[in-house]
Amino acid sequence: MPRAEPTPAPQDFDRVLSSMCTEPHPAAREAAVAFLADNPGDPATYPAVADLETEAIDALGEVVGLDDPHGYVGSGGTEANIQAVRAARNLADGDVNVVAPESAHFSFQKAADVLGVELLLAPTDDDHRADVDAVADLADDDTALVAGVAGTTEYGRVDPIPALADVAADVDARLHVDAAWGGFVLPFTDHDWSFADAPVDTMTIDPHKMGQAPIPAGGFLARDAETLDALAIDTPYLESDTQPTLGGTRSGAGVAGTHAALDALWPEGYRDQYERSQANADYLAAELREHGYDVVDPVLPLVAADLPDAEFEALREDGWRISRTATGELRVVCMPHVTREMLDDFLASLSGVGNV
Amino acid sequence: MPRAEPTPAPQDFDRVLSSMCTEPHPAAREAAVAFLADNPGDPATYPAVADLETEAIDALGEVVGLDDPHGYVGSGGTEANIQAVRAARNLADGDVNVVAPESAHFSFQKAADVLGVELLLAPTDDDHRADVDAVADLADDDTALVAGVAGTTEYGRVDPIPALADVAADVDARLHVDAAWGGFVLPFTDHDWSFADAPVDTMTIDPHKMGQAPIPAGGFLARDAETLDALAIDTPYLESDTQPTLGGTRSGAGVAGTHAALDALWPEGYRDQYERSQANADYLAAELREHGYDVVDPVLPLVAADLPDAEFEALREDGWRISRTATGELRVVCMPHVTREMLDDFLASLSGVGNV
Repeated sequence: MPRAEPTPAPQDFDRVLSSMCTEPHPAAREAAVAFLADNPGDPATYPAVADLETEAIDALGEVVGLDDPHGYVGSGGTEANIQAVRAARNLADGDVNVVAPESAHFSFQKAADVLGVELLLAPTDDDHRADVDAVADLADDDTALVAGVAGTTEYGRVDPIPALADVAADVDARLHVDAAWGGFVLPFTDHDWSFADAPVDTMTIDPHKMGQAPIPAGGFLARDAETLDALAIDTPYLESDTQPTLGGTRSGAGVAGTHAALDALWPEGYRDQYERSQANADYLAAELREHGYDVVDPVLPLVAADLPDAEFEALREDGWRISRTATGELRVVCMPHVTREMLDDFLASLSGVGNV
Repeated sequence: MPRAEPTPAPQDFDRVLSSMCTEPHPAAREAAVAFLADNPGDPATYPAVADLETEAIDALGEVVGLDDPHGYVGSGGTEANIQAVRAARNLADGDVNVVAPESAHFSFQKAADVLGVELLLAPTDDDHRADVDAVADLADDDTALVAGVAGTTEYGRVDPIPALADVAADVDARLHVDAAWGGFVLPFTDHDWSFADAPVDTMTIDPHKMGQAPIPAGGFLARDAETLDALAIDTPYLESDTQPTLGGTRSGAGVAGTHAALDALWPEGYRDQYERSQANADYLAAELREHGYDVVDPVLPLVAADLPDAEFEALREDGWRISRTATGELRVVCMPHVTREMLDDFLASLSGVGNV
């Protein structure tokens, strides 16, 4: 096989501001390495990692305010969002639609294509949150699912979940909350977002994002067993009966890493991290404003700001891993690996390119 | 979080005969650990692992006889089979069906449910291979995809791929080959199974099975770029344009591990492993026959044999990880971690429980 010379090195996180993933917690990394070859998708062959998954789901239930959670650790938030839509579709009759705010992650577009459902996107309000009236206008008798986002990808906004639950109830639809990124910071805020705050049916919460678990570790949680039943496919030759997951073979590293991260960090470690990340976001927002940029106030640890294309490109040239919202704003995700020093370096680079 | 005491340990492979996964090659394990936090689903942030994926796909093309392969390393064979069906559905018009042999992996049932297509299963012949006439009888104008298996899950059989290609061509359908398990042993056999042997459109070939890469590493390969185009969803805020994968975030460990395994093993290391595994399967088959069991001849390194339920259960009690076909036969998958010594231990255990 032809080889790249030199062999590429893993990404150094020193200049990564665009990712919603991060360096795993040391205990989570260690567990992932230990369970790298285990397959929780085959619990009769790999019972230990299956036990870890049961415990991890129970612990995730604590994070999201659910006493008796049903769910699993899958490949990521996209899988979990697809599964939420799939369960809603399978539990409904005939052609169905899904109503979500336009701030919903593009995985809902993927889910719509994969599952053959219509996706109706409602505009957001002036603060980039779902406009409840607009969602209500789109919801109808064919609506199987209303989706809200608790920590949007672009602006870190938290949709008004209880109000969206009312909309869902009005049309006899299910309610899904995508807390893929926000789920491990929201417990330390005053937002209403969880299974305890509203009649949420399903939720996406990714340990491999703010949960500090290694990739791949996406969480799919449901209030009722019927959700997983609606996803179950018979499984011969596995010595287990059915499989509700979207994938077959799954990552023992992700499951064991999730277990270890929750064990190490829930709740105080996550609280400390939230406070550090939020303080960093507030700091960056203040500094950017000071430099004259328009900034979208960070309600969670994610900063968006207007930045001319030439400056954006110059910062990428400088090695900064940054990305843009659909409308072109710089977005900086204050993940656990993003330190105050990194932000100061970034601000220094920004000052350097400000006149290009 | 409540903790299991003692903390469960990863599965010891000394008694694992049921899995189609295995211990990763040392070089693949090392690469996986190094790239544990990289996300090839976000190539603008993690360009190094994206480069490794490009090289790995080119190398997989060599394995499957395809000069200019299109594809990616995903979560596993289930994802790849779903994607093959999805591409065929998206490239066709209206309601479609998929025709596969009844020996097809249960992931095709999952694909049918997820994607809303009809799955038509044709009986197999006396040797557990797809019955081409039966497939032809089911295929019609609505058939978007004919699927064959190159290394079936239950009996390790290779369907007559060129004949299935003719059936597909007759109804203007695409042809998919599921070589999830078989793809890394078939290059060293005389079977016709690859892109070079027939007008195959898409293929599943899993590095994390016989390819000795770590989980999760499933390969999805296509002959033409239009296949991935048919799967592509727009991706704002990733600094890349579209995403054809089923998941969003993907495993750098799986991609880097695949690259490292191919670098270390293709082709001679895989050839040696095939020869060892096949010799072990032939040995086990002969010994089981000697003990009086009915054995399905292993054409690839997988042995199936009639075994009374009581003996099966006693072996499970002894710690052996074994599983059964849908009709109840023992199946032993001679993966790289399965040594002659393990098989002798297993045969000794079998002798011990033979009279329960």
